[in-house]
This record gives sequence, C-alpha cells and structure tokens, in this order.
Amino acid sequence: MGLGNSFGDFYKITTFGESHGPAVGVVIEGLPAGLYIDTEDLQKDLLRRKPGQSKITTTRNEPENFRILSGYFEGKTTGTPLTIVVFNKDQKSKDYDFVKNTFRPSHSDYTYYKKYGHYDYRGGGRSSARETLARVIAGNIAKQLLKHFSQIEVIAFVEQIYNIAIPEEFRETAWTYQQIESNIVRCPHAETAEKMIKLIEKIRAEGDSVGGIIKCIIGNVPIGLGEPVFDKLSAKLAYAMMSIPATKGFEIGKGFAAPLMKGSEHNDQFTIRKDIIKTKTNFSGGIQGGISNGENIYFRIAFKPTSTIAKKQQTVDKQGNIIKIQGKGRHDPCVLPRAVPIVEAMSYIVLADMFLKQFTREELQKKLQ
Amino acid sequence: MGLGNSFGDFYKITTFGESHGPAVGVVIEGLPAGLYIDTEDLQKDLLRRKPGQSKITTTRNEPENFRILSGYFEGKTTGTPLTIVVFNKDQKSKDYDFVKNTFRPSHSDYTYYKKYGHYDYRGGGRSSARETLARVIAGNIAKQLLKHFSQIEVIAFVEQIYNIAIPEEFRETAWTYQQIESNIVRCPHAETAEKMIKLIEKIRAEGDSVGGIIKCIIGNVPIGLGEPVFDKLSAKLAYAMMSIPATKGFEIGKGFAAPLMKGSEHNDQFTIRKDIIKTKTNFSGGIQGGISNGENIYFRIAFKPTSTIAKKQQTVDKQGNIIKIQGKGRHDPCVLPRAVPIVEAMSYIVLADMFLKQFTREELQKKLQ
Amino acid sequence: MGLGNSFGDFYKITTFGESHGPAVGVVIEGLPAGLYIDTEDLQKDLLRRKPGQSKITTTRNEPENFRILSGYFEGKTTGTPLTIVVFNKDQKSKDYDFVKNTFRPSHSDYTYYKKYGHYDYRGGGRSSARETLARVIAGNIAKQLLKHFSQIEVIAFVEQIYNIAIPEEFRETAWTYQQIESNIVRCPHAETAEKMIKLIEKIRAEGDSVGGIIKCIIGNVPIGLGEPVFDKLSAKLAYAMMSIPATKGFEIGKGFAAPLMKGSEHNDQFTIRKDIIKTKTNFSGGIQGGISNGENIYFRIAFKPTSTIAKKQQTVDKQGNIIKIQGKGRHDPCVLPRAVPIVEAMSYIVLADMFLKQFTREELQKKLQ
Amino acid sequence: MGLGNSFGDFYKITTFGESHGPAVGVVIEGLPAGLYIDTEDLQKDLLRRKPGQSKITTTRNEPENFRILSGYFEGKTTGTPLTIVVFNKDQKSKDYDFVKNTFRPSHSDYTYYKKYGHYDYRGGGRSSARETLARVIAGNIAKQLLKHFSQIEVIAFVEQIYNIAIPEEFRETAWTYQQIESNIVRCPHAETAEKMIKLIEKIRAEGDSVGGIIKCIIGNVPIGLGEPVFDKLSAKLAYAMMSIPATKGFEIGKGFAAPLMKGSEHNDQFTIRKDIIKTKTNFSGGIQGGISNGENIYFRIAFKPTSTIAKKQQTVDKQGNIIKIQGKGRHDPCVLPRAVPIVEAMSYIVLADMFLKQFTREELQKKLQ
Repeated sequence: MGLGNSFGDFYKITTFGESHGPAVGVVIEGLPAGLYIDTEDLQKDLLRRKPGQSKITTTRNEPENFRILSGYFEGKTTGTPLTIVVFNKDQKSKDYDFVKNTFRPSHSDYTYYKKYGHYDYRGGGRSSARETLARVIAGNIAKQLLKHFSQIEVIAFVEQIYNIAIPEEFRETAWTYQQIESNIVRCPHAETAEKMIKLIEKIRAEGDSVGGIIKCIIGNVPIGLGEPVFDKLSAKLAYAMMSIPATKGFEIGKGFAAPLMKGSEHNDQFTIRKDIIKTKTNFSGGIQGGISNGENIYFRIAFKPTSTIAKKQQTVDKQGNIIKIQGKGRHDPCVLPRAVPIVEAMSYIVLADMFLKQFTREELQKKLQ
Repeated sequence: MGLGNSFGDFYKITTFGESHGPAVGVVIEGLPAGLYIDTEDLQKDLLRRKPGQSKITTTRNEPENFRILSGYFEGKTTGTPLTIVVFNKDQKSKDYDFVKNTFRPSHSDYTYYKKYGHYDYRGGGRSSARETLARVIAGNIAKQLLKHFSQIEVIAFVEQIYNIAIPEEFRETAWTYQQIESNIVRCPHAETAEKMIKLIEKIRAEGDSVGGIIKCIIGNVPIGLGEPVFDKLSAKLAYAMMSIPATKGFEIGKGFAAPLMKGSEHNDQFTIRKDIIKTKTNFSGGIQGGISNGENIYFRIAFKPTSTIAKKQQTVDKQGNIIKIQGKGRHDPCVLPRAVPIVEAMSYIVLADMFLKQFTREELQKKLQ
Repeated sequence: MGLGNSFGDFYKITTFGESHGPAVGVVIEGLPAGLYIDTEDLQKDLLRRKPGQSKITTTRNEPENFRILSGYFEGKTTGTPLTIVVFNKDQKSKDYDFVKNTFRPSHSDYTYYKKYGHYDYRGGGRSSARETLARVIAGNIAKQLLKHFSQIEVIAFVEQIYNIAIPEEFRETAWTYQQIESNIVRCPHAETAEKMIKLIEKIRAEGDSVGGIIKCIIGNVPIGLGEPVFDKLSAKLAYAMMSIPATKGFEIGKGFAAPLMKGSEHNDQFTIRKDIIKTKTNFSGGIQGGISNGENIYFRIAFKPTSTIAKKQQTVDKQGNIIKIQGKGRHDPCVLPRAVPIVEAMSYIVLADMFLKQFTREELQKKLQ
Repeated sequence: MGLGNSFGDFYKITTFGESHGPAVGVVIEGLPAGLYIDTEDLQKDLLRRKPGQSKITTTRNEPENFRILSGYFEGKTTGTPLTIVVFNKDQKSKDYDFVKNTFRPSHSDYTYYKKYGHYDYRGGGRSSARETLARVIAGNIAKQLLKHFSQIEVIAFVEQIYNIAIPEEFRETAWTYQQIESNIVRCPHAETAEKMIKLIEKIRAEGDSVGGIIKCIIGNVPIGLGEPVFDKLSAKLAYAMMSIPATKGFEIGKGFAAPLMKGSEHNDQFTIRKDIIKTKTNFSGGIQGGISNGENIYFRIAFKPTSTIAKKQQTVDKQGNIIKIQGKGRHDPCVLPRAVPIVEAMSYIVLADMFLKQFTREELQKKLQ
C-alpha cells in the first residue's frame, strides 16, 4: 500500500518521488482555470528551501529546474491537474552504499526496512527531506491562488536554535519578510541571528547538529476558515506541520503555557474596535472552536537536531552486528533556516484548502438568504 | 458544506450530531465481519467520558444509552457500516436562550455565527464537547478490533492541572490503568491527584476554571505503523489530538525540549537486546521517519482552561453592544479527567487505521517474496 | 472492511442499515447552512418508493416515519452533517429462517456468505432493496438544494415491462410528472400502462416475475456539469444507476444504437437558436466530453426480473445439498414502478455533486478574470 | 477545481496530462513493495493502444517512451507512489489553430470552453483520447499485481463494427488472446474481422467514421469481489467503462435483453459441479448483489462513431457565426481496435482495487475465527 501521499480535499496535492530517484513532483488538483502562475516567484521559494544556499550549509546556488508537465497553457492554469516536477541530479548515490546494510540512528532506515522489506535506501529515499520540495511548490501555488481572493499573509521565522532564542521582549514584534530574509539563518532579530550563525558553525566544526523552534504568524485571515470536529483549522495546521521531517512539537496560541492561566485570564473577551468585533487579547491564537476568528493565527514548531552527524555513533547492521558509524556526505548541521519556507508552504496549503471550502459555503449561503 | 466529519481511511469514522439535537452518533466503516462487540466494555468507556461522574463535576451516574443501528447481527459485526448513536435527553435548552444573541468569550458562538449564519447555538451545537461521545464509541471499537491482532495498549493520564504536576522523579514511571482510575482526576500519582482535586474544588468555588496536560503512552506497538510524508504516525496523532476540543499543544518524544539537545545526545542509538534490535534511548518517542520502531510511543497534550466560567466577562451581542455575561448551567471547571478516555479513543482510532494499512501491506508482501 | 457506502465528493452521502436491523439511514455532508427542508416533499418521495403502495404490490399505505437526527435546527440545515433515519418495523424475520441455510438463486445470499462469513441474512440484510430508502432521502434533499440554484428537472418513467413498451411513435414525447404519476405502474402512456398492469397481475398469478426498462430525462441542465477523465457526467450517472439493485444495463443518448450510425449522422452539429448556441440534433444525450452541453440528458436503464419468485427452483444449501425452494413473503413481481423514484434520486445526487463542483469553479473563475 | 482525476481506493490512480502538453502520466498508490515490474509487458500493452499501429489507422510503430519517475528501485516497486509518464512529441499543434476559435461537433471544445473559459484546445487537451495512455499503464501494473495473487484473466475484443457483427452462433465462443491479436481490428472471428477491416477502409475513404461494440470477459474471478450498495462490482465496471472516451452504453450479463426474460428463466439456479457450488446458467454475468460469484463476468460496451470526420459539417465559432468545417489531421475512422486494451486496462484497475479490499477483509476474518 502507499496511500497518505495526498493532503487536502478541495485544494488537493499528491506528491511523489525519492531523493535519489529520477524526480520529485506534485500533482495539484482543485485549481480554477485562468490562474496566472508567476514562475519567478515559484523559483524564489524553491531557492529558499534549497540545500547549499549559504555558508552554514554549503555553497552552491543553481536554480531548481522545475518543469510543469500538465494543467498549464499560455502561462495560466487550465483547471485540470497541475503537475510540476523537479528532476534529480548531482546524486552522489555511492555515498549511501554503507546505508544499504546499516541502520543510521534516528533515521528511517530501520523502520522503512521493516515496513517495506524492499526500499530505496539512497539518501533516505521517500523519507528524505528532498520530498519537501514538492510541498514548497504546492505551497507557492496555494499562495498565488489565495492572493487573488484574500489578503492572507504567512510569515515564518527561526525563533530559537539550541539554547539561543530571540529575547522575550521581542516575542510580540511584528517582523517583516525583509527582516527575516536579511540573514542566512532566517531569524529576524539581527543580534540573535548572528549568535545563531556562530553557534551553527561551531556545532558543524564539532561534527554535531542542533534543532530549534520556528514560529509562524498568519495575518489577515478571513473569519470562518476551518471545519468542525476533525478538521479544525488548528488540527489541520498541527497535522501539516507535524508531517514535516524532524518536527517534534506544535503549539498554537498560548500552547503549553495555556494550562498555567485560569479561564478568567485565558478567555479572549470581545470588544468593538472601529465598528468591528475584535478580541481584547489573542491567547487562543486566532482560532475558536476550530474556526478562524479574524485575529492573527500564530503557532510554534519544535524541530529535533539533524540526525546525520559526523560523530561516531553505535548502531546495528542487517546481520545484527553492533557497529560504529560516522555520517558522510553533505548535511546541514541545522535544518531550521531551510525549514522556514516549508512551514510557510504547508500553511498556505492548509489555508487554500480551508479557504476553498468556506468560499463555496459562503457563496451558496448568500444565495439561500 | 460540511465535510471534515470523517477520520481515517481504512478504519474510517464519520460522526454527526449536536449537543441539544436528537442524537449524537458515528458510522464506522472498515471493520471485518465476525468481530464480537463487548457492549459492556463500550459502556464502561462511555461512563469514563460522561459528565457528572464525580464530585469535581456533578453527581449523576446513569448509563449512556447507546443504540447500535446497523452492521451488527447476533452480537457480531457484519462487515457493513456499524452505526451507533446515543439519543440526547435531559437537555436544559432554555439555559442557552441568552447565547442566542450573545457571543461567549473563547467559545465558538462568534465563529459559527460568521461561518454559517444559521447555526444551532444550544449548548454549543456541533462544537459542543458532546461530539466526543462519538469518538469514544469509535475508539472503543477500534480497541476491540486491535485486541485480536496485536498487544497494543494505550494508557493516558493527567500529568498536570494548572501549576500542579506529577513530580519530575515520577515522569518515567510506568503507571497502570488501575492507578489512573483509582481517583476522580485520573492522575496516577496519588499525592498529586489529591492536590489537583483540591485545586479544582477551589477553582470551582471561585467561579473560574483551569486547564492542564495529559500524557499518553502507547506500548507494544508493532514496527511499521505510519505512512511516509503526510501520514506519518506522529502527524496523524497530532491531527487527532489537536482536533479534541480545548487542545492547544502536542509534543511527541522530547517535544519542545528536543531543541535543547544536540544530535549526538538526541539520536537514539541502536543496540541488541535479547536478539532483538532496540534503541538504547527513546528520545524520539517510538517513531522514526513517521513510522513506529517498536519502542513506546509517548506524547503530551496541552489543554486550555474551560471557556465557560461563572465570573463576569465582557462580550458583545449580535447587535454590537458591549455587555457583561456570566456562565450558567452545569460546567466542568476542568475538563481533563473526562478528556483522558477521549485521548485514548483518538489514539486507538489512529492506530486501527494505520494497523489495517500495514496489515494489508505485510500480507501482500509476504506473498510476493 | 466496509467502504463503498458513500457516494459523491462535495455533496456526499454515507448510507447504513440492514433490511431487518433497527434502522436504515443516511448522513449527508456538503449542504450549506440555511436550507429550508420541506419535510412533506420528502415524505411524498418516500411514499413513491414504499412497498405496498398499490394493487400490483400490496395494499398498505402508512407514512415512512423518518427522523432527522442531526444538522437541522428551526426547520433549516445548519451546514453540519444532516442525518436522517427510518426505523424498521413490521419485520417478519421468521419468514427468513429458511434463508439462513439456503442460497436463493440470483440473490446475494451466496456471495455475502462467501464474502463475509458472518452476515445478516434476514430479508437480504444490507443487500436488500430497503437500502434504497436512504437514497431516496438523499435524492430528495439534493433536489431541494438544486431548486435554489437551478431549474434542473429530472423525470423518470417506466418505458417497458417485459415485452410491453411505449410505442415507437411516442418515444420522443415530453411526458409530465402528472402523466407518470397518474397510474400505478408509472408509465405515462395510459394505454401501455394498462397493458403493463394486466401483465404484472398475470405474472404474479403465475408466481413469476418480470423486469423492464426505465427512461430518465433531465431538463434545464446548466452547461459545464461533469469533470474530465473519470468523473464524466455520463460515467457518474452510469455508476449511480448501475448501483441500484437489479440493474443490468445503462445507455445514454443513442446508446447501443449509436454504433449503427456513421459519424456524419451521429455528430450533433451546432447552430444558433434565439442567439444561443444549440445542437441541431441531440444524439449524444446532452453530454460532450463528459460535460453537459445544455441539451436534455436522457438515458435508459435495464432491470432484470425480480429474483424472488413463488415458483419452485433448484438451489444448494450450506451443507452442499441440492434442494428445491419456493419464494415466500411479500414480494413485488416487478420492481420498476418503485424504482422510478430511486432513479430520480440517484440522478439528483449526481447532479448536486457535480453542480457544487462547477458552482465553486465558476465563482472562482469569475473573480480571476 | 479539478478533482475527478483519480480512480480506486486501495489501488488508487491519479492521472494527469494533456494531448499537446509536455507529458501524460499516472501516479499509482496502493502497491506493496517488492513487486517486480515487467517493463516489456508494459511496453507491449502501450503499443496495442498506440495510434498508427496498422493500415486501418496509419503506419508508424515506434515504442512509447515511458519513464518511471518514482516508487521503483532495482526493478521492483518500493511501496511508495509509482509514477510513470510518457513525454509527448511529434505534436502538430498548428493543425489545431482552427479549433482555437471553432467548436467541433460532438467534441468537447464547446463544453470545455463554457466550463473553464481558459482551456488547452490543442488536440482536445485533457479530453483527448491520449489520456487513456495513463489508463493503459495503470491497468498493466494492476494486471502484474493480480498475477501474483489470482488467476484472473481479462479478455476484450471487438464484437461489432457498425452493422457487422460476429455471427450469433459464435457469441458464446471462448476466444483466445492470440485469436484476438491475430488481426488489426481485434475481432477474433477471422471472417468477420476481414469484413470489418474492409468496411473501415471504405468508411475512411468516404471521409466518415463508425463505432461499434466491445465485449469483455473476465475469467477465474475469486468469489467475493465487489462491495455492497454503491461499489457493486457491476457499478464500478460501468463507471470505469463509461469513463472511456466515446462510450455510450454498458450492459452486463443479459443486459438490455434481461427484461425479456421472466424471473423463472433469468434466475441462475445453483448446482454442484465437482464438489463446488456453481450456477447452472450465468445470465447475471458472474455478479450477484454486486459481488462476484466465481462465474465468468462478461459485459458489452457501445462506442459511438469517431467525432472527427473529413466530411463538411455545420458548426459555430466563438463569435457566434455559423460556419462549415472539415476535420484535418490524422484520425482513426474507428477507435475500437485501439479501445480493446483500454477496456482491459480499466477492468484490471477495478479488479485490483476490489481485490485488495477483499484480500484485507479475508485475511482479517480468517484471524477472527
């Protein structure tokens, strides 16, 4: 079997592809005809996700050569499935010969082996972070779709790397895209960013790795996105974010700090501002009963340290021998800077799906009145 | 529109019903024929979720009168949809007359009103925690199914209420079902439980409410559950848990503490124990690359304080007047004790779905070899 | 497993229930909030499907006691799942004791036994035509929804019973609902209807049964319904109709007569009538490339003779003995009159689903221009 | 929107691509890992569908250059999505300049234009029969999967072209694959085949086109395939077949002739042959209550004459002018010979999906006993 490669109902994506196979790609269903696709904007987002974009990773910087295979005519969507693929190249598959027989700690080698028996171990195969390329493509198209129908804006950034975090007093700051993109670690607070970069360089030199926390803020959200019961906007965001490789936690609004408030403190009381119903506080993170209330949505995602490290570790091979291994190949000591556009992409994918559902409902309900 | 009432693919549930409508129920698809249903076990789980089961809530204790409408013959499933409903009664709908015109803070009144225009405001309607009754039914049936094919065991308990938590030194203790059920707050550490109960009684007297954290541990998990990319076991658990009313955060394994470890510390190195491949540590929480590795799965869920409180709060009515309201009716000052069986139920639902997928795959792959 | 109880994507129904179980019902998802439900109109359609409505069946005529369990408030839908059930009663289950051990020819007894092992054999269980009750409910609601957004009108009638058919010269006649409902066999041509009724009475007296052909015409169809490739409007109608019990064939437009025309004859050439693009002929049946072109859609469905007959037939029991059986209980010698509302219901269900998809697309595309 | 590009649940395919776009392809989900793919067998089926394979079409015969993009490693499936594409080439897009502004009779130009506004008109775009290439790929893989688990064999052939049909006395003959493939029209009765070929050549010379009937027989079907209610095996086959371009009718078993039999004649009485329960006749076509009974499944599909003809026809352009057009480019005067492998492919796709569902159920039920 192999289901679970799709996400979304009305804006529906199906991804495919392995790290060292011929290509990675996505089929996008649910787009109307006539949507102009800004391929430069798509290229830009792909470059933000790309390995080797900065000195804290490696130093290459060629474009990702995506190719639109279907659903596209004279620069616009046709309403049929939009398929976009990126062909793999520069694969140092031989680097992975040792993986063929060995289970790397905290990688998926062992679980895939037990699940499938026959699996593509090169570079992690289907479990490689390379699959997120398809997410960034689908997220960019979702963003381009939403731009025509809303002012929704998703901003994600690195809030913490290991024990270095943006200071408390800046936790509510409304950072801009420019501030975030102004440095290679994608932390908008310049001073913290500098410390993070130094830390990552030090960790890399040690042959070790670190994780961190990404924060995401969604502004200008229309009221009414999200569905009751299972498809609460918060549940779908949690689902989307926790499907990103290396994620270990998700919290929305006050999150794990909410239990330390009483109801009388945590409740977001209503008020009127400029004739519009608003909440005085926004501890819930812009979602009530699973449905957006028009306030900012914000959430945080915890990432574990990268599993591949240059240090020696104990593991086991397929014959059951206990052995020592050491990571080879090019690997990021910290995935967070590159995970920022992935978090944004998954947000846009969730929002596009929820938007289309509510759009249909609202148009129908208008005509029923 | 109204999609999003279903969960799961192979073990698939569709729930329906409003708090003060005629009934709440669930249609379960994906069951084989011939599964004996232990209706007493089902009743037992329903009573654990039931309002008014203890002095920290209220004092009634009648059975939930569920009724099996289809898919059931001579005590066993028939392989066709198993539909189980609970008819509502004892509805004090008049208690909600004031809600008709008023948006209760941090409730879904405002978002449902804006989303649907016409909605059943009585008792929260579809957004009421009463819908979780359908989840407990579906979770119990999933548990009964899994019992025939695995040793999987799900244990959930209250780890923290407001600022009272099980002491650090007991964080790794393997609690039993009996310990958890030995007190009304479902915290297995007796001393902490006592403090929690006192706190909840005090909070109720203040007309306020509190939240907390539930921990869930899944033991004896077969290796190979979970699907690549979007349907990672961890992502599906996050999705399931964050769809429970009042949840604000989910973390698995080390969760939000993982970023404070280096890769060399966090990686779960492999070893051999009694001829079986095991990990020396289990910081990842039993899941690698989204797929279970046979170690215990454990995760924590943050719940916000109950929104309904007896204290005066500011809000707005449909005419746009700023007014003060005060909660009426019977409400729990803390939902966590009753949320424990819901967390277990959603865990079993996710596991049953993932189990059926992997079961099919394994049986096919065996025959391909 | 038990999937395949749902139909449709945007207008989605999930049915459940067995013939002699407690109830038969349907969960309808995809409805907007605020749709007034005319319960009298629903009752009317249920009575048209009801067994025992005329002398060619039996003579009872009580109302079907449906009950709305969810998604309904103050006479209108709430946008959450609309669940409607009919509780079974008057079940002569003992009539089916002989079925417990015997496979009735051309019934599902044998295939269900082999498929499920444990199955509800009473009255056919899930395979009983009683499940079509849920279809008629869902079809009626679909009709009520479409009435607000289109002029779509579905008309079905009995064109042929055994060898008695409406004469060729009336094959293009535009029959009215009143003409169809004016007699108990639902054949709008009065003279033919009379012959059919006499035939059915004769066949019943013989202890035998007959089948026939139902024709369905859909008028005022908006242009653009249907989706490319797999979900062509014609394919979905075929799927829907061939899922009705006892159906053996489906043809649209010229159907099986199309091969006897050359392309130059069969092609529907375009013309302009009153400034509107129309086709000069309509041999294709209102659908081109799977998408409605605004002309009438018409199709025919073949039904086999009822499997239950009073005549002696050879069969086999579970022990493998060859035995003779004879149908007992109350059974229609001809199902077609009661199948007419089922054909209409399935048409409305397909149309509602396709309408919602195209409605969304059109609204989006309008805003993209 | 653009849903409806998928077919199947457990064996699930999603196709994409336009006639004159970069590629046509399919994503196949639901395959176990370790299935060896015989690429030569796939190539063979693709050549059977290929345009220009014989003198009654044109005379080219290069291989279809399919490329496996994912889910494939060391000659076998990996259990992740198997994606296979064929890149388009040799596109004479200029041939379609006249279509840009003109609606060809009985083509989808007009309905796509009204549905999407912006559409790829070249060669029919998504509505082109070129999309069936993806079906043949998916059908071949389904066949290769089923070969490991069953003896299922699908045989399709041309039974009738225009008014030339295999004589009545050969209607029950068990034709072989070799007989069918022995001539270019894929009619196994040599004498009839010869007449058909002459007819097609004559029709082509006239600038006209013809349709016909394909018969399909499925042997060695395991008992128990098909699901109750909506996903009856017969309903799914009807759905699958009627989604093939140019189809106008589907009948199974006695089909439209069933109404001319009485119940006592049409019922398939049971008997015992070699200790196995069999039916004495097989008028139902191997399916009872929607579920296979182990007898041969057989059905017939009506195809209309090809819409593109060289003769002058009246139509309308986008400006609303009535004009005359004449088909250009290379077109088959009769699609049936090439439709034979498509009918087989869709049969295998339906069977693989139904097989996987029942396989899972049976394995579960075995362990429940």
